[in-house]
Amino acid sequence: MEFNLNQIAGLIHGKVEGDGNQTVSRIDKIQEGQPGGISFLSNEKYENFIYETKATAVIVSEDFVPAKPISCNLIRVKNAYTGFTQLLEAYSQMTKKSSFGVEQPSFFGEYSIQGEGGFRGAFSYIGKNCTLGKNVQIHPHTYIGNNVKIGDNTIIHPGVKICSDSVIGNNCEIHPGAVIGSDGFGFAPQEDGTYKAIPQIGNVIIEDDVSIGANTTIDCATMGSTIIKRGVKIDNLVQIAHNVIIGENTVIASQTGISGSTEIGKNCVLAGQVGIVGHIKIADKTIIGAKTGISRSIDVSGRTLFGLIGFDIKDFMKSYSIFKNLPQLQDRIKELEKKL
Amino acid sequence: MEFNLNQIAGLIHGKVEGDGNQTVSRIDKIQEGQPGGISFLSNEKYENFIYETKATAVIVSEDFVPAKPISCNLIRVKNAYTGFTQLLEAYSQMTKKSSFGVEQPSFFGEYSIQGEGGFRGAFSYIGKNCTLGKNVQIHPHTYIGNNVKIGDNTIIHPGVKICSDSVIGNNCEIHPGAVIGSDGFGFAPQEDGTYKAIPQIGNVIIEDDVSIGANTTIDCATMGSTIIKRGVKIDNLVQIAHNVIIGENTVIASQTGISGSTEIGKNCVLAGQVGIVGHIKIADKTIIGAKTGISRSIDVSGRTLFGLIGFDIKDFMKSYSIFKNLPQLQDRIKELEKKL
Amino acid sequence: MEFNLNQIAGLIHGKVEGDGNQTVSRIDKIQEGQPGGISFLSNEKYENFIYETKATAVIVSEDFVPAKPISCNLIRVKNAYTGFTQLLEAYSQMTKKSSFGVEQPSFFGEYSIQGEGGFRGAFSYIGKNCTLGKNVQIHPHTYIGNNVKIGDNTIIHPGVKICSDSVIGNNCEIHPGAVIGSDGFGFAPQEDGTYKAIPQIGNVIIEDDVSIGANTTIDCATMGSTIIKRGVKIDNLVQIAHNVIIGENTVIASQTGISGSTEIGKNCVLAGQVGIVGHIKIADKTIIGAKTGISRSIDVSGRTLFGLIGFDIKDFMKSYSIFKNLPQLQDRIKELEKKL
Repeated sequence: MEFNLNQIAGLIHGKVEGDGNQTVSRIDKIQEGQPGGISFLSNEKYENFIYETKATAVIVSEDFVPAKPISCNLIRVKNAYTGFTQLLEAYSQMTKKSSFGVEQPSFFGEYSIQGEGGFRGAFSYIGKNCTLGKNVQIHPHTYIGNNVKIGDNTIIHPGVKICSDSVIGNNCEIHPGAVIGSDGFGFAPQEDGTYKAIPQIGNVIIEDDVSIGANTTIDCATMGSTIIKRGVKIDNLVQIAHNVIIGENTVIASQTGISGSTEIGKNCVLAGQVGIVGHIKIADKTIIGAKTGISRSIDVSGRTLFGLIGFDIKDFMKSYSIFKNLPQLQDRIKELEKKL
Repeated sequence: MEFNLNQIAGLIHGKVEGDGNQTVSRIDKIQEGQPGGISFLSNEKYENFIYETKATAVIVSEDFVPAKPISCNLIRVKNAYTGFTQLLEAYSQMTKKSSFGVEQPSFFGEYSIQGEGGFRGAFSYIGKNCTLGKNVQIHPHTYIGNNVKIGDNTIIHPGVKICSDSVIGNNCEIHPGAVIGSDGFGFAPQEDGTYKAIPQIGNVIIEDDVSIGANTTIDCATMGSTIIKRGVKIDNLVQIAHNVIIGENTVIASQTGISGSTEIGKNCVLAGQVGIVGHIKIADKTIIGAKTGISRSIDVSGRTLFGLIGFDIKDFMKSYSIFKNLPQLQDRIKELEKKL
Repeated sequence: MEFNLNQIAGLIHGKVEGDGNQTVSRIDKIQEGQPGGISFLSNEKYENFIYETKATAVIVSEDFVPAKPISCNLIRVKNAYTGFTQLLEAYSQMTKKSSFGVEQPSFFGEYSIQGEGGFRGAFSYIGKNCTLGKNVQIHPHTYIGNNVKIGDNTIIHPGVKICSDSVIGNNCEIHPGAVIGSDGFGFAPQEDGTYKAIPQIGNVIIEDDVSIGANTTIDCATMGSTIIKRGVKIDNLVQIAHNVIIGENTVIASQTGISGSTEIGKNCVLAGQVGIVGHIKIADKTIIGAKTGISRSIDVSGRTLFGLIGFDIKDFMKSYSIFKNLPQLQDRIKELEKKL
């Protein structure tokens, strides 16, 4: 899809400096800008690239003052990053149309109801006693068990499985293959070395404005609820165990796992491949670096942790830089021993 | 669902001390007990909470002697933890009814047979020459290839994929989205830098009483069988590579990966995000801590290992506590060097 | 399935030394060889086993000269490992027949076309405007969105989800449950602590001869394309984020995650559970050990890295061996301090 710069400036409330009739069909990173593409400059670290870029146009903030001559066209907006995301949103709305109606064959259990404006794709399965809100999109191959509630405007992508008794809020998006409400991993050891399954009779509650990534798994509670609070964003292949609670606006990157009954605070950021043991609490605004393991509660909010058994990231980095030079440190000790 | 305490005492063979007509509708942890909930006290570490809890009732063992006055009702049973799990099981059986019959549309390949009392959900796919035992539940969107055998009373949850030639035992439970029998990851490097797929012609054998978690993947053997032995419990998002053998009653937590041809002993416990290289053996009763990497065979049973390249957990913890203080250790060496 | 040794020798262009009428039905590792099985000897480390094996036959290279008497039959071929893989391939072609035609019910969107010789399984879903090449196998429960292109001879296993606008090459194989083209994980932080989704309007391009593992997830680009180049082999449960580029013939083992906009070179090997941050470049022929984290670009090709924050594996191993003995090192410092 091609747009000229005047059209784009209209979309994002900006002004063209240069030739508004030139067209672009692509967004490039500024350091890789090529003709036919539009880039943006938001971070001053990248300023040098604007003087060399071959991009047709660059979105800049209105207070940007070039230090050297610029050969590309500019679109000036109040905030360059905001303007860039507005451009993406506008483009997205133009190209990704919502689906409506019901494709066949599909399965719709008795006593279930769906609000106006929604979509159910072919091979979707809705169990009994479900309530789907307005404008809910149920894509093909979605499984929804019994007694499930889904709020308005929520999008369930293909092949998602939502087990019985789950409650999903408004404006949520659950990406392909995610599993919501599978049994928690609870087994009671028996005297003969075998294990007996502990029934998992709770559910999952997902509040409004939550995003769940592809092939992520969220187990139901043993009893009570596993709760994902308002505004939480979860990436692909994440594991959320039974009875976990994730606080509002917390972000969890791919392949992270959170063990049973742990409670994560609000506005935390968990990077990729983090692991957190069960039955602990993580304070609000905690940042946990990639691959970090957390084995104890974090009581003070706002800390940044890192390491196999995580501690403050600055301290970890100091220790790790010495770890990298341990052979030399050992040599110094040998030298001292020789002298004495 | 609400029960009074007399009903619960009946279910778990206990005696009420207090008002048996009071009702509960929820199980709470004892430290979070609230009116309308029932808790249990099994671990003496939590004893203090029973003197303060607002729970309507607490299940305790028959030999429990309160050290202070107690305001909640008690239900005394032989063993409080066993009583608690009995309560869960009873509740679970009351509320989670099995499904029966065949929903349509579903696909059932030629020469396949299914025993009495079973269920096949809408959009389930059974290939050719399959044998499903009695009371097997095949939930919606399940894919089962050709020549698959499934034992009695096994539950296959929605969206599970069981590839051709797999053998599944009795009383197994395979949770949503799990993949059983996908091709092993085997490629022969060619002289030009490309790779050629090595055909994976083996299968997966899952013995009785095995549980497999949501979105877990178990690859078929290159030739022969990948074997999950009786009583093994596997959590969500676990990777089991080709030709792996998992010994009886071993428990594997979420996001752990086991590489090709490795053999895990009986009654092992692998915590979350563990990684084990291929072609090694792990002795019986080995415990492997979260995020641990294992690169060599473990010959002695009963060890507990931890670390990026795992070794005995006590030794790891000693080394790690010094690692955290490496800057100070380095300072002490500097001080010594200065003095000499 | 049983073959006699003459038949096998015919298949792999070898010569039998011994009784060509004896039959085998199984391939065993040479160290575990049992009657009725055939093994191969390629690596001289395993030579001792050939003098003790109970295997019915062993495939050896034509220049193999036994150092001791051998009791099993031999099949001599030019290269024993190649002969072994030829045997697997021949067996695989005999037993794993391709499927043809269209099973019902299945869904095929308007303006979509499929080339000759292909298969579409029951409950498969093909959106609008899709182009499927010749001999494409679409197995049951596959979801394919709109505007998807798939090249000739590609196999899409059960339950794969390929989102709209994806482009898949020739001779690819995508294993069960994989998700291709799900939304990238991009959210703009707002002033009130919430996050706003950044539209992900790009796609995924998978070139020829690529293999994608079970339940692996590959996100679409924010804008532009996430690109998996020719000959790449990806294992199960791997995460590839938006705008990542994977170079030709790179191999990625299970549970590895690659963050957004990172570019991996050609002919790299990433072991299991590796994690790579976003926005970096990894040089060609880099080898990254299991569980390694990579936080900076790797500029020099051919390095082997290891560690939580990876550096050269030899240096890591030296430091780690001292780490394991840190308590003793600390004692030596104490001793020195005492003496001074």
